[in-house]
Amino acid sequence: MGSVDTRFLELPAPLPLDCGRELHSVRVAYETYGTLSPARDNVILVCHALSGDAHAAGLSSTPGEAGTRDGFAAESRDGTAGKALGWWDGMIGPGKAFDTDLYYVVSTNLLGGCRGTTGPSSINPETGKPYGSDFPVVTVADMVRCERAFLDVLGIERLAAVAGGSLGGMQALQWAMSYPDQVDSIVVIASTHGLHPQGVAWNAIARESIMRDPAWQDGHYYGTGSAPDAGMGVARMVGHITYLSAPALEDRFARRLQFADDIRYTIREPEFEVESYLRHQANSFVKRFDANTYLYLSRALTYFDAARGHKSLAEAFAEVEARTLLIAFSSDWLYPPAASAAIEEALREAGKPVEYHLIDAPYGHDCFLLEEARQTPIVRRFLNEGDHE
Amino acid sequence: MGSVDTRFLELPAPLPLDCGRELHSVRVAYETYGTLSPARDNVILVCHALSGDAHAAGLSSTPGEAGTRDGFAAESRDGTAGKALGWWDGMIGPGKAFDTDLYYVVSTNLLGGCRGTTGPSSINPETGKPYGSDFPVVTVADMVRCERAFLDVLGIERLAAVAGGSLGGMQALQWAMSYPDQVDSIVVIASTHGLHPQGVAWNAIARESIMRDPAWQDGHYYGTGSAPDAGMGVARMVGHITYLSAPALEDRFARRLQFADDIRYTIREPEFEVESYLRHQANSFVKRFDANTYLYLSRALTYFDAARGHKSLAEAFAEVEARTLLIAFSSDWLYPPAASAAIEEALREAGKPVEYHLIDAPYGHDCFLLEEARQTPIVRRFLNEGDHE
Repeated sequence: MGSVDTRFLELPAPLPLDCGRELHSVRVAYETYGTLSPARDNVILVCHALSGDAHAAGLSSTPGEAGTRDGFAAESRDGTAGKALGWWDGMIGPGKAFDTDLYYVVSTNLLGGCRGTTGPSSINPETGKPYGSDFPVVTVADMVRCERAFLDVLGIERLAAVAGGSLGGMQALQWAMSYPDQVDSIVVIASTHGLHPQGVAWNAIARESIMRDPAWQDGHYYGTGSAPDAGMGVARMVGHITYLSAPALEDRFARRLQFADDIRYTIREPEFEVESYLRHQANSFVKRFDANTYLYLSRALTYFDAARGHKSLAEAFAEVEARTLLIAFSSDWLYPPAASAAIEEALREAGKPVEYHLIDAPYGHDCFLLEEARQTPIVRRFLNEGDHE
Repeated sequence: MGSVDTRFLELPAPLPLDCGRELHSVRVAYETYGTLSPARDNVILVCHALSGDAHAAGLSSTPGEAGTRDGFAAESRDGTAGKALGWWDGMIGPGKAFDTDLYYVVSTNLLGGCRGTTGPSSINPETGKPYGSDFPVVTVADMVRCERAFLDVLGIERLAAVAGGSLGGMQALQWAMSYPDQVDSIVVIASTHGLHPQGVAWNAIARESIMRDPAWQDGHYYGTGSAPDAGMGVARMVGHITYLSAPALEDRFARRLQFADDIRYTIREPEFEVESYLRHQANSFVKRFDANTYLYLSRALTYFDAARGHKSLAEAFAEVEARTLLIAFSSDWLYPPAASAAIEEALREAGKPVEYHLIDAPYGHDCFLLEEARQTPIVRRFLNEGDHE
């Protein structure tokens, strides 16, 4: 994709939220790739996950900007001195899964984010100070409402597809439910209709870790000279391990010690390679991410429950018009294949067009960022079929 | 077992440690159940895991003492107003797996512990102040050396068996390697010869959470009026989820909300039942456990590597004389069955008598505290065979 700029846009009207409040002066950070067709009918919205941002593809034109690709993905791709590759660069571009020769791909930073879109670190226009924990608790439906309002400003009414992994997949699913007549298809990767209780627990632990850090200061740490980096570091470590599979960690680290052949009898210092790796992941993450955004997005993704307020998941999907593509990965234990299978079953029961692909891959949840070679033909064929209907 | 007392004993000589230091005036907390035979040949040593103590069976005679049984186990058994049942009460007693009509069962609090045996919260005789993080970094072999010295004081030379789950199983394995001619048999339950890297990671995260809490004060928080309860609470939450299986959490909590039928839009408060349960587990744990002990025992169990210094696990077992019983649980992902299978294979390769039982049970690692009905006949038959050899 070459070098790309993140741009910014302010929504013209207040954004109503599920909690009953509304947000004023909402700014949205976004990037676009490819060319909008004259009929404006070739738009694909890609939605990022918990720690992503609008920079989904190409090289960021902001020098020195920390990359958002994490973990295994980051290490295999971020060798581009000072310019970060987008988090889904392997999937977006000419000839790629989301083919920019055909589609106009739009990516926004989520509502509640910390990378340009209005979130807890933004200035509250009512007080002139950052919201902090006064920011309203937002939902996946609120994020989608924000994306809808943003696309209105761009003059885009319909979407050829909404696509995303993890929390991004929840947004795709929500789009098909919130705006059924405006979405032709959704691509839901490594996602779920409702996180299982172990996943809810991991997220609760991450949030507890941040909020128990005294530097969190009840959410009002901006401008105080300190931030809950210690707690968010631990939160990130927890997240990171849940994104990877146990066999992937075994392959990569085994029980190798960092130094020499023997232990050094230390409590404080990392001793195993995997311990050092975790500390490095935590330290690099806290430099680029805001702890309150972590809290809010983590809360939103645990709240997400497509069936809530309905008798069944099938009933929740009654109004869906989009074709659905589901992809899950065999080793993903945070967003396990069973969830995608349940979505498939419910959509079938509701009489909706759906296909589900289970990819046998070893890396865990992070596969959605890594397994582009096997996702690409599936996604291309699925989108192509839509074009010829 | 009725009401039992925890007793205390001071080792007559300094205890040498793997790290090269030695500990003076080591105190050991212990309990015994059953009657020592005149020949002193009916002794079973049971070894506890990370959060246990010497109180393995019966009702503690200390009123108001917090129980050490955690989680599912605690809730199903601790209904004994003010008097806590031992952590392995289901396994130790007349007619039980470790039958006190036949055996003299001895249980000690581990070296480094916080429940009566010398550990980081004990007074350092050199300074007159608690050790804190000046306490030497101890290993599983050090724990076993302490247990050996303790049994010497009791005049017990040989053990009919050493038994334990998790970190307790590591000690049993270490006994067979450190004192091959003094152990007739070992019972190694839900344990491993070396924790896999994901387990190493969970433990590292727990320790980071404690050490990043400013109240840890570099390990010297005793007498300061504050302790790293916030960090240890998070550590306990992480531990707790790794002790349970995802299906067990699904069965128990699903995605049920705590209040009413809808979300309350809160970042700070627990919203799902599983979130509230975690917070409760953390809060009750910090009342009875010392954070430095958590650090030291966690470090010891990640260090444990039966094969370290040997070409293979089979070679490490070359001197073992004990018969070995291995039990693992199908849903235990922290100490997975594969580890027990690897121990079995290595012992067979070394020509040692071993039997391995994989129990199909749903609760995860905590099965070793819960599945006594199925463990009992296996353990009784194994011990009985030893008596008739």
